[in-house]
Amino acid sequence: MRDAFHEELDAITASLVEMGELVSLAMREGTTALLTVDLKLAEKVIADDDRIDDMQHELEANAIGIMARQQPVAQDLRTLVTSLRMSADLERMGDFGHHIAKIARMRYPAAAVPAELTATIQSMGDVAGKIIDKATHVIKTQDLKAAVELEVDDDEMDRLHRQLFTILLDDSWSHGIETAIDMTLLGRYYERCADHAVSTARRVYFLVKGEYASEQKPTA
Amino acid sequence: MRDAFHEELDAITASLVEMGELVSLAMREGTTALLTVDLKLAEKVIADDDRIDDMQHELEANAIGIMARQQPVAQDLRTLVTSLRMSADLERMGDFGHHIAKIARMRYPAAAVPAELTATIQSMGDVAGKIIDKATHVIKTQDLKAAVELEVDDDEMDRLHRQLFTILLDDSWSHGIETAIDMTLLGRYYERCADHAVSTARRVYFLVKGEYASEQKPTA
Repeated sequence: MRDAFHEELDAITASLVEMGELVSLAMREGTTALLTVDLKLAEKVIADDDRIDDMQHELEANAIGIMARQQPVAQDLRTLVTSLRMSADLERMGDFGHHIAKIARMRYPAAAVPAELTATIQSMGDVAGKIIDKATHVIKTQDLKAAVELEVDDDEMDRLHRQLFTILLDDSWSHGIETAIDMTLLGRYYERCADHAVSTARRVYFLVKGEYASEQKPTA
Repeated sequence: MRDAFHEELDAITASLVEMGELVSLAMREGTTALLTVDLKLAEKVIADDDRIDDMQHELEANAIGIMARQQPVAQDLRTLVTSLRMSADLERMGDFGHHIAKIARMRYPAAAVPAELTATIQSMGDVAGKIIDKATHVIKTQDLKAAVELEVDDDEMDRLHRQLFTILLDDSWSHGIETAIDMTLLGRYYERCADHAVSTARRVYFLVKGEYASEQKPTA
């Protein structure tokens, strides 16, 4: 049986996992709202972000409370500090879903994404969802194999990001500057969200092993 | 006289202040490299970012060490946790200086910024530098009046960001999609850097007062 302290740590992990599930939903629904021009869904994603922000504040208060009461040292203390940083990553990842939904809302009733970029944006949304789900699994299970796999998944996001720029810069681009600005920002939101997900998986790896995997480069 | 614990806290604050000074320099030099098409200066800003990253890792290790040895509670514990979050903000702010210098390097020997946006980008660089310096002053002195003033300084950054888009979207824009993409990203780098600086000042305010100022909205 787990002692009271480790039950409190488990509760922190459960909150991180719940945040990861909400972020995954936000990125998937945000992408759907964008590509199907669904204002109601966009509004839902925007409103749901408050819940993710609230969870981060609660988690931070809980973690500080546990530190003050339990006075953890060594690995237990590092676990709590890492949880604080992962909750900040997850909160930020939720912001990107919110930003994507806001672009959908801003351009409504027009479609923000032109036809020639629909497939790329859909793929970026799918890859983001997959990366977030895998990072959430890593937080839940400390599955280090999955943590390393995420580096490869992120390479796919980088490839899609380059593909987006190739389409924007093609001579046949006919949608003008405003749409190019929207697509530049969208591309960055998906890519940054994936970066933060990779970063959470690296933090778990480092926490367990005390070093980064050879495939991983430390990031902040 | 300060006791050993508070001397350790002072050292953490001194590191945050040094990070703030390095970030301010990176944003100012990055802007100069961009606008004067100075490859050597761009390379310097890119290389200097490693120092900021290293400082963050050292600060984090120090803060965790202090927590483990001193077992702080209440305000002292909150101060340490807030320091961790501010060091993450500052590290991220340094990244934006690095990103700006990389755009200068990527377009060299051409100028990345067209003539009609030079003044706007220079102003964004100046305002970013001013906001970072003021946030650093807030970290150093806990000057809450300055912490609140930063909200107004950030309004100026938002105004410049809108001005940038107005110029990009003007019918007379003749620099094509690639330059529009660069300018969209640059605008975001300056604006996000300022957001993180404002966020550090809000953290100091909250730490001292236990609540946000009425001008401040909590962000992550």
